[in-house]
Amino acid sequence: MIAKRDFPVYKVRRYLEPGPIVLVSSRWRGKTNIMTMGWHTVMEFAPSLIGCVIASGNHSFHMIRESGECVINLPTTELVDVVVGIGNCSGARIDKFAKFGLTADAASEVKAPLIRECHASFECRLHDDALVGKYNFFIFEVVKAHVAPEPSHPETLHYTGDGVFVVSGDVVDKRALFRPEMLGP
Amino acid sequence: MIAKRDFPVYKVRRYLEPGPIVLVSSRWRGKTNIMTMGWHTVMEFAPSLIGCVIASGNHSFHMIRESGECVINLPTTELVDVVVGIGNCSGARIDKFAKFGLTADAASEVKAPLIRECHASFECRLHDDALVGKYNFFIFEVVKAHVAPEPSHPETLHYTGDGVFVVSGDVVDKRALFRPEMLGP
Repeated sequence: MIAKRDFPVYKVRRYLEPGPIVLVSSRWRGKTNIMTMGWHTVMEFAPSLIGCVIASGNHSFHMIRESGECVINLPTTELVDVVVGIGNCSGARIDKFAKFGLTADAASEVKAPLIRECHASFECRLHDDALVGKYNFFIFEVVKAHVAPEPSHPETLHYTGDGVFVVSGDVVDKRALFRPEMLGP
Repeated sequence: MIAKRDFPVYKVRRYLEPGPIVLVSSRWRGKTNIMTMGWHTVMEFAPSLIGCVIASGNHSFHMIRESGECVINLPTTELVDVVVGIGNCSGARIDKFAKFGLTADAASEVKAPLIRECHASFECRLHDDALVGKYNFFIFEVVKAHVAPEPSHPETLHYTGDGVFVVSGDVVDKRALFRPEMLGP
């Protein structure tokens, strides 16, 4: 595992726009938790906004709503059994860091922990809860990003439902066909 | 190209949760248009809700807002040059169906056209525009879904920014590790 380094927050689309399953870590009243999440989207470059659905039945829902914070962590394919395990038990009864052998590192801007074994970790603050009541839809601002510099294209997990994932494969560079202003910041 | 068949709308997460680039087709005042979109997320199974960002600078923005409709189409990797081309020109000046050799098929529930060359097409009606003003964030209900039955795991494009895509690769079936109630509807 290569140590993560600071990464520009306005570039997190690099890792999240492809649509990977992520692990969301939280801390509230001295306890930590982790949940899996597949329903998320980039919403803006600057501020760096991520919208996501956290079902209210999840133990993490109230921890994240009350603390107003979380960390979105990017697991790679080696962690697939951990990802599935985390999604199939509740933090109400279990310390998921201990149960799944994960390491909680201190974040710098939020109290929620980083997951060391993940390729990237994005520290988030709740930015807008206007749609939480109606859709369980949270809008977070990424306030600090940590990314392992290698590999440049980690193999990520993309969930299709029914217990089946597809993993990210070949890289296709089409930069030559883009107008410069369409390449993003 | 295998003809598409009806597909249950509550299962569209099967194709959209993995996070592919999609092509959004629209029709307003007798004109059609197509845009590429990478910022989208599943929000609910039933009703089948998809949230997405359509930047207000896009020609499609007003067409979709005024008509209250669109079709979300899933292109596969063979269409990568078309996807890039569509994202790098404006429908204000160009008929994108003609320019890119795509076929507009009639939808059944909306006036926006299906793109025949795509693997799947999801007819959408605007469900909630509460966050359009602030974030250009639209919530659509998928009211009808059309999917080609083969291949079961089409190779899709996942955008990382900077003109670079990753394509979907191997399939990993972890169903045996899931609690039945976690597999979704």
